[in-house]
Amino acid sequence: MILISIRYKIIFSYDGTNFCGFQVQPNQRTVQGEITKVVNQIAKNPSKPIKICGSGRTDSGVHALAQVAHFDFPFKIASNHMFKALNSMLPLDIVVKKVNIVSKDFHARFDVSGKRYMYRIDLGQFRDPFKRFYTGHWRGKLDLNKIQVALNDLIGTHDFTSFVASGSEARSNIRTIYEATYHLDSSNNELRFEFYGNGFLYNMVRIIVGVLVEIGSGYRDVHDILRLYRIKDRTQARRTASPQGLYLKHVYYEYEDPKHPTKSSYKI
Amino acid sequence: MILISIRYKIIFSYDGTNFCGFQVQPNQRTVQGEITKVVNQIAKNPSKPIKICGSGRTDSGVHALAQVAHFDFPFKIASNHMFKALNSMLPLDIVVKKVNIVSKDFHARFDVSGKRYMYRIDLGQFRDPFKRFYTGHWRGKLDLNKIQVALNDLIGTHDFTSFVASGSEARSNIRTIYEATYHLDSSNNELRFEFYGNGFLYNMVRIIVGVLVEIGSGYRDVHDILRLYRIKDRTQARRTASPQGLYLKHVYYEYEDPKHPTKSSYKI
Repeated sequence: MILISIRYKIIFSYDGTNFCGFQVQPNQRTVQGEITKVVNQIAKNPSKPIKICGSGRTDSGVHALAQVAHFDFPFKIASNHMFKALNSMLPLDIVVKKVNIVSKDFHARFDVSGKRYMYRIDLGQFRDPFKRFYTGHWRGKLDLNKIQVALNDLIGTHDFTSFVASGSEARSNIRTIYEATYHLDSSNNELRFEFYGNGFLYNMVRIIVGVLVEIGSGYRDVHDILRLYRIKDRTQARRTASPQGLYLKHVYYEYEDPKHPTKSSYKI
Repeated sequence: MILISIRYKIIFSYDGTNFCGFQVQPNQRTVQGEITKVVNQIAKNPSKPIKICGSGRTDSGVHALAQVAHFDFPFKIASNHMFKALNSMLPLDIVVKKVNIVSKDFHARFDVSGKRYMYRIDLGQFRDPFKRFYTGHWRGKLDLNKIQVALNDLIGTHDFTSFVASGSEARSNIRTIYEATYHLDSSNNELRFEFYGNGFLYNMVRIIVGVLVEIGSGYRDVHDILRLYRIKDRTQARRTASPQGLYLKHVYYEYEDPKHPTKSSYKI
């Protein structure tokens, strides 16, 4: 008997509120766990359980607009049928946006060339009840000119040792950031950051946002990020922005962005 | 001993997701219950418990952008201090937007002259995980011209017997609708309705939305609302739109809207 299998790439979105993060954990509701359950149900519970490989983890409470994963399915189903089957069986806090059959060369984690994250901060005096699971919150004044200067300091290749949480398993703390921008959405009273880079360390985006807010508030020197690169000391970047505001917005694969085609050599 | 008390009017917003509706019920988490608890805590648990009187009920899962209530407090606190005390003690799914000290003539329910509701419908092919608690959902095509014709049929004074759910305690089913509009929010792929009238019966907005969607889908004649007024039969308006999409947007009091100053004589 020849065992064949078909590799599927899926792009999906989830509301992280009611998940204990992305990665499977015993006795916890996780995104990977829910997708694994459904994919195995579609395959009629094969003798060898199908595993789901994601582009990387997200923490408890963190959202994804376009997370990517792959899995090897024991028989062929047209991608539009797989799309409908997944969406009709998945819980309402996960939705699959795209399904493709891909070659066995494709790997959702090893082939990542970059990631884009968004962070939303609600600026209201009191927390908006409708945003409590979907934004961070800051009620103080922020100097956007200072924040712009600090964002410029993020661009390029740097040692982010001061910006990594304990528990990181990365072999190197050097990462390259291609874009770091803000957008003030006045109609929603929100400040939104976007970060695009070749990889991000554990909690790195949330620690960066904490530092940016402190620079915008005048609690830190406008170029404090340059000092943090030098001193390589996590205890200096005190505040970690809350997970609710963080969204994995896009996962880039080799040659998807011709300007930044490098296959990442980092463990992400 | 002379018992004095000060009447406070509060305007507040809530995410209805985790409440069993507005009104106090034994062993259930309700909006009125949470506010009652906090107000009595601020008053150091007075011997005679303070009661909260709202402008009317909302159902389980229904939201409010500006619900109104009043209560009589046993001693005077400046309204800005009451505002801060309430917001620091209330759970994160309720936020007080305004506090005023008012005369004893003001009554949050009896003085209502009108209400404005919004209903949000997500038009995506699959339910957006981030909107599942905040919108209804319709994936079929909708003819907005037909919906506009139907909205016009709502304007004016009509007998809404076909549009009231069983369990209504209203003495009369006659209500006047001043405004009934739609707005297509393409950037969010949403259709939003707004209804402003002198009062709304139990489930009336959600039943109206159900009928509007069926008219827009071609399942009903474009003027079917006129037939429903005549036949006065609830079973004919089958679909009740889901509570998640409904928002109490504004409560009007006498003379607040000079065009529609009438004090409502209906039990709302």
